[in-house]
Amino acid sequence: MTTLDNPRDNAVEQSSDLTPQQRFREVRAVTDTLASRLSAEDQTPQSMPEASPTKWHRAHTTWFFEEFILRSVPTYAVFDERFRYLFNSYYEAVGDRHPRPERGLVTRPGIDEIAAYRRHVDDAMVDLLRRGALGDDALALLELGCNHEQQHQELLLMDVKHLFSTVPMSPGPVYVERGADAPAESDPLRWRSVAGGVTEIGAHGDGFAYDNEGPRHRVFLEDFEIARRPVTNADWWEFMADGGYRRPDLWLSDGWTHIRNTGWSAPGYWRFDDDAGWTTFTLSGRRPVVADEPVLHVSFFEADAFARWAGARLPTEFEWERAAADVDSLRGELLDPDRCHPRSTGHLNGGGAMIGNVWEWTASAYLPYPGFAPANGAVGEYNGKFMCDQHVLRGASAVTPRGHERITYRNFFPAAARWAFSGFRLAR
Amino acid sequence: MTTLDNPRDNAVEQSSDLTPQQRFREVRAVTDTLASRLSAEDQTPQSMPEASPTKWHRAHTTWFFEEFILRSVPTYAVFDERFRYLFNSYYEAVGDRHPRPERGLVTRPGIDEIAAYRRHVDDAMVDLLRRGALGDDALALLELGCNHEQQHQELLLMDVKHLFSTVPMSPGPVYVERGADAPAESDPLRWRSVAGGVTEIGAHGDGFAYDNEGPRHRVFLEDFEIARRPVTNADWWEFMADGGYRRPDLWLSDGWTHIRNTGWSAPGYWRFDDDAGWTTFTLSGRRPVVADEPVLHVSFFEADAFARWAGARLPTEFEWERAAADVDSLRGELLDPDRCHPRSTGHLNGGGAMIGNVWEWTASAYLPYPGFAPANGAVGEYNGKFMCDQHVLRGASAVTPRGHERITYRNFFPAAARWAFSGFRLAR
Amino acid sequence: MTTLDNPRDNAVEQSSDLTPQQRFREVRAVTDTLASRLSAEDQTPQSMPEASPTKWHRAHTTWFFEEFILRSVPTYAVFDERFRYLFNSYYEAVGDRHPRPERGLVTRPGIDEIAAYRRHVDDAMVDLLRRGALGDDALALLELGCNHEQQHQELLLMDVKHLFSTVPMSPGPVYVERGADAPAESDPLRWRSVAGGVTEIGAHGDGFAYDNEGPRHRVFLEDFEIARRPVTNADWWEFMADGGYRRPDLWLSDGWTHIRNTGWSAPGYWRFDDDAGWTTFTLSGRRPVVADEPVLHVSFFEADAFARWAGARLPTEFEWERAAADVDSLRGELLDPDRCHPRSTGHLNGGGAMIGNVWEWTASAYLPYPGFAPANGAVGEYNGKFMCDQHVLRGASAVTPRGHERITYRNFFPAAARWAFSGFRLAR
Amino acid sequence: MTTLDNPRDNAVEQSSDLTPQQRFREVRAVTDTLASRLSAEDQTPQSMPEASPTKWHRAHTTWFFEEFILRSVPTYAVFDERFRYLFNSYYEAVGDRHPRPERGLVTRPGIDEIAAYRRHVDDAMVDLLRRGALGDDALALLELGCNHEQQHQELLLMDVKHLFSTVPMSPGPVYVERGADAPAESDPLRWRSVAGGVTEIGAHGDGFAYDNEGPRHRVFLEDFEIARRPVTNADWWEFMADGGYRRPDLWLSDGWTHIRNTGWSAPGYWRFDDDAGWTTFTLSGRRPVVADEPVLHVSFFEADAFARWAGARLPTEFEWERAAADVDSLRGELLDPDRCHPRSTGHLNGGGAMIGNVWEWTASAYLPYPGFAPANGAVGEYNGKFMCDQHVLRGASAVTPRGHERITYRNFFPAAARWAFSGFRLAR
Repeated sequence: MTTLDNPRDNAVEQSSDLTPQQRFREVRAVTDTLASRLSAEDQTPQSMPEASPTKWHRAHTTWFFEEFILRSVPTYAVFDERFRYLFNSYYEAVGDRHPRPERGLVTRPGIDEIAAYRRHVDDAMVDLLRRGALGDDALALLELGCNHEQQHQELLLMDVKHLFSTVPMSPGPVYVERGADAPAESDPLRWRSVAGGVTEIGAHGDGFAYDNEGPRHRVFLEDFEIARRPVTNADWWEFMADGGYRRPDLWLSDGWTHIRNTGWSAPGYWRFDDDAGWTTFTLSGRRPVVADEPVLHVSFFEADAFARWAGARLPTEFEWERAAADVDSLRGELLDPDRCHPRSTGHLNGGGAMIGNVWEWTASAYLPYPGFAPANGAVGEYNGKFMCDQHVLRGASAVTPRGHERITYRNFFPAAARWAFSGFRLAR
Repeated sequence: MTTLDNPRDNAVEQSSDLTPQQRFREVRAVTDTLASRLSAEDQTPQSMPEASPTKWHRAHTTWFFEEFILRSVPTYAVFDERFRYLFNSYYEAVGDRHPRPERGLVTRPGIDEIAAYRRHVDDAMVDLLRRGALGDDALALLELGCNHEQQHQELLLMDVKHLFSTVPMSPGPVYVERGADAPAESDPLRWRSVAGGVTEIGAHGDGFAYDNEGPRHRVFLEDFEIARRPVTNADWWEFMADGGYRRPDLWLSDGWTHIRNTGWSAPGYWRFDDDAGWTTFTLSGRRPVVADEPVLHVSFFEADAFARWAGARLPTEFEWERAAADVDSLRGELLDPDRCHPRSTGHLNGGGAMIGNVWEWTASAYLPYPGFAPANGAVGEYNGKFMCDQHVLRGASAVTPRGHERITYRNFFPAAARWAFSGFRLAR
Repeated sequence: MTTLDNPRDNAVEQSSDLTPQQRFREVRAVTDTLASRLSAEDQTPQSMPEASPTKWHRAHTTWFFEEFILRSVPTYAVFDERFRYLFNSYYEAVGDRHPRPERGLVTRPGIDEIAAYRRHVDDAMVDLLRRGALGDDALALLELGCNHEQQHQELLLMDVKHLFSTVPMSPGPVYVERGADAPAESDPLRWRSVAGGVTEIGAHGDGFAYDNEGPRHRVFLEDFEIARRPVTNADWWEFMADGGYRRPDLWLSDGWTHIRNTGWSAPGYWRFDDDAGWTTFTLSGRRPVVADEPVLHVSFFEADAFARWAGARLPTEFEWERAAADVDSLRGELLDPDRCHPRSTGHLNGGGAMIGNVWEWTASAYLPYPGFAPANGAVGEYNGKFMCDQHVLRGASAVTPRGHERITYRNFFPAAARWAFSGFRLAR
Repeated sequence: MTTLDNPRDNAVEQSSDLTPQQRFREVRAVTDTLASRLSAEDQTPQSMPEASPTKWHRAHTTWFFEEFILRSVPTYAVFDERFRYLFNSYYEAVGDRHPRPERGLVTRPGIDEIAAYRRHVDDAMVDLLRRGALGDDALALLELGCNHEQQHQELLLMDVKHLFSTVPMSPGPVYVERGADAPAESDPLRWRSVAGGVTEIGAHGDGFAYDNEGPRHRVFLEDFEIARRPVTNADWWEFMADGGYRRPDLWLSDGWTHIRNTGWSAPGYWRFDDDAGWTTFTLSGRRPVVADEPVLHVSFFEADAFARWAGARLPTEFEWERAAADVDSLRGELLDPDRCHPRSTGHLNGGGAMIGNVWEWTASAYLPYPGFAPANGAVGEYNGKFMCDQHVLRGASAVTPRGHERITYRNFFPAAARWAFSGFRLAR
């Protein structure tokens, strides 16, 4: 789908040229492709309450179109009324739902029936689109549904990675084969200076954005500097070698409690063996940690401790967005779906790309912008109700679907979460 | 498989006439048949820590033969060394093992690879048996392995039933179709008197028995009476109607705490709807509770409370065994594998069958008999190490495999467990 | 202690006129007075992990002066070396400490020995102060220690209130007797308009402030309105009557989960009896809820849900501080230690007092101000390390010690906490 | 209180010569003496849910007389109606009660008010006794109440020991001062042979016994041997040196899980320091472990594992009672209240005493004897309802009150409990 001649920012523009029907089909097809590498057994379990089965992701993204668009179409025949309960994620306005921690126990519908469900909904949607039967509100919900499905595509990969990592076998399951990593050059940290002042933050209103990206509003920023590249594995080794995980003075109180309770002493998925050294579990199995790649699967607690150790800090989400808006070429080459892995950072310092490698923790709590009002109806529950004790990540990762990234995008996770493709960059 | 002309006790004698090879093949085939009704998705999850995935049962029973017989055969090629860790249940002498609560996360090997594992081990075993290459010790382990697999066949059905029951859809998954229940006649409780004195208890040594069934030894019993039939659903309704679940004076202290914490107010799998009345979840889906069938899926706590309410008590396991030894025709018609359901009790009072309907809680704690010594080696961990805070059940259930039941058989579960096919009868 | 001619802001200026020795003696005496109403038994238990025994508060505030000032005085004789471990709260730099949840098990030292410990440290401090032996750094630590002790005076009252409330006896224990509440007039909500723009926030540097109140820095605010009085119990009844606790659309996701898990359906300490109606547990025992008093003991979750229900929102901490800076007479009459109760709000709308009634939840997460650096040494752990998943409260409560309140003061608690004297006011 | 001329068995006979009034006064006085060594702070906390505050023990034992005897006396004035709820332990028939894990939060009534409560009830009881106003049933309840209070005297000491042990200070609190231990001689294990057959077990009916000690009934025993002395600390060191805590083959499955979860590697209260070697926490503070004293504060799991390691087993409670009935002089010198410590065993092998040193775990589950019926009324809840997943201990400990021990006495605790004064002896 992507070639060297077809860089990422072009792809984004292309996507906005697609008809709604093309857009819908393209997004839906990606989910099917991602799932096609997994057996029925692989698609069934839930490895922790925060994760979901692949099978469930496939059904839930379908449910979204059925629930919010098709149900109000008089001619539409609901595929199975029981799915309304079964595949609702968290929409209170829709009604009761199956308890989240028990998603891995639902063996029926199996993957064949879920495929049929997807086809049923796709056919109904495409038929409506062909006939031009959707009004503006429905088309907006269609675009929301496509973005929703793209978000679940990344969640699906996060969750499969976590599931596969729990199996204590060596070499362990592989989601996608990949060759050896190319050698990467060391890339010393350099800083970019950004002038402060009153600046505008948030989505402009041209092009799709989630409700939580607006309203666009003014904030006051002091002058600041932001790193030209994310923190790398090599950087992280220095932190570890300096006792970073053993020094309480570097940590937030909750972070220190957390690492003592969990025994964390390295990023998520890392393991040290006398023979293999540091390896990390990837969607291509267990592989050596590459020094000059961005560090991945660190929590907010770890990012914050590292920054303190480095005599720096995390940027706020406003600083991050301000800096990203300045960069000539914002985007890296995103989502080679067979890669599922961050780029090494050698060329990033130069190119200045801030998106498409790793999600980057910021210093900001996830709070509503001044004047924020959630969308009307059940889809208003999409974002706003999570604005409590979550931390904002900006950018996008190597597995974020093409066209789903924006500089105003606000991803968020709890401070201890690290199964997302999360890294960070420094500010000062 | 069973006919009126081919009663259950004949089946047992037949089984002892089988060659070891026939016996092995027959037992192995039953497991395959039981699993054949389940999809890959159905065979993967673990619905609670005490239960195991069907996939795991199939692999673990195979592991038993590989670990305890084939590994010591020089020419045997181990199928996959990683399975030693993955499918060990609880044998400390074999080494570390995969954590029990995570059995549902192991998606690979999938069911096809597990089928190949089963064939690999079956071929190796049958080859050894054909060549007469197994000595007495190995043949004893073979018989132990067959009994072990039979025990897991019932566990497999218990676990599938529990898994299917967690899915909150109506009508819910069906393991095996079954027609409507035949009407049953009411069957008032009658008692059998048994004379006390010093009596012998335990396995004679002729025919297979687990180590925990011996040594045969003497106990002193007072005269007692024992019910001719198990307690029925109709009896249980009386108990419920009389406030049985709300009267602390009827319950052991731990039992009362347990029902307050869980909110239990009926046997396991029961549900009351205004339209359908009392139904129970079965391997054939949700069905009406039948008045004259034995009550099923009650815990020791509930059995004990009922007995107190009825002015009676549970028999000790010694009384149970003494009474069973007296009965002319001990056994009912066992395991119609398509039935998976207790018989109604109308003919049992007359026939006196004490085995093959429901497992029956006794008043006895699961303790070693005088002089008990576990078997040598890792298989010594089979039974003895669980002799603490477990309660003995005697008899056998409708899903106990044919030929696996014995009057000296000591089944055991914790006092609060009720996912086994457990009921009880009264004594006084 | 306070009269109409002797308003609260005078009291503050007076306190800054005190010599360090007078200041120290005065603060220490208040703690002794607060504890003098409690028996040895009352001072011993810990009613939840977040709370501490009175006995412990008395010893820990003493430990603060010993640890951070006296230990570096060569002539000082440590009272008991074991107290260093026993009464350290959370200072990692000081060393290991007694596990927080076990503070209620330490019966020795008893209250008499703790009184001796207090006298020992007081004598040593006063001797140093008399001799002018403390340098500027030590005097700054002295002032920090006095503020620390004042903070614990309020915690002590919060914790005693919680402890006494756990005893299920009627009328229940009374900390301080109090007469009947005077009738209060209804006080409709009115709003104050505040102009936005770039504004300065944080401590000026004149007078004591915690490190987390600085550096003073610029933020951009839009125009806003803020309520002239806090939300009252009468307001809360309306919210409850309108199903406030039963409507998921009003709640943050974590808040909704929390109230379902806890069953909360009213503010903390409230109870409904058919005869007495709504009562609330106070330091003067259980009393009727007074309609026109500010609602108290609500969590951030509840404040946020109420604001959504009211079509308004919580102010940010910056808006709150900006509004407070504008008010002619900022402060109410604080801490009548025999009152321990918020004022009714009738006169507040008029007088504009924003401090001294209830702590007020804001919409702001507790985060470092730009350029924040914690104090050097162990006391740097006082504030900064808690800047994660906490929510800022501004103002002060009726039990905040006189002279401890400031408009830049940043109190903080987790979103679900409600044993603080916490209420809120609306903004829009 | 005890002299060499005044041996223990005489003490028992003496006690039966006491008038009910003398008996009552004597038992009540012991409780007061035990509590008199503890401050108000010491008497208030609850160090774990299974333990209770001293203050509570004093009130609950008083409540027993008020509830079961005085309430039915028309002229009796209840001291405080709230105590009925507050000091009920577990009697469902009496009504609701204060949650057990919160006993440490009840600061009021304080110890002075509880002393007044005790005097109030004592005065009322003595008045009734003086006037001969109690019938046979009430006198039986009086004797039950006295035994109940004696049982709580030992619990009080167990609980104080546990509470004091949680304070991580050195030297730690001391309940009673004691001089250095006298040197003890090594005492090799010798066995006593006991002939089997049908034997009678249980209380005869002459003299007080709890309901769970009857009915007297017949059991069949094989010939057996029982150790002449309990297992000693020196024996235990051998077990530890041989890897006893690290060998899964020695342990029941639940026991192995338990020691892995808890990290147990020595008996309760033991600690190893490089300088002091093995010490144990006692009511006289931390002291060296004495080689030839019985091992104390081991759980059933540990006793069972030791027996397996030693190639022996625990006696059943029937074997224990049969053996005890044979011993000429059954009893050791009990309860020197200033000693609170087991005797060294040098003289026990010779003297044959089986009672008064340590409670001895048996192999028996705590089950009803054939024909057991609990007492009528609420006091029927005293014993019977705990007959589930508990393990019988026989004998008595050094802190069991004089006159409270009997060879038919059935003490019981869960398998993992070890805060009782529990040891064991071997059988084979």
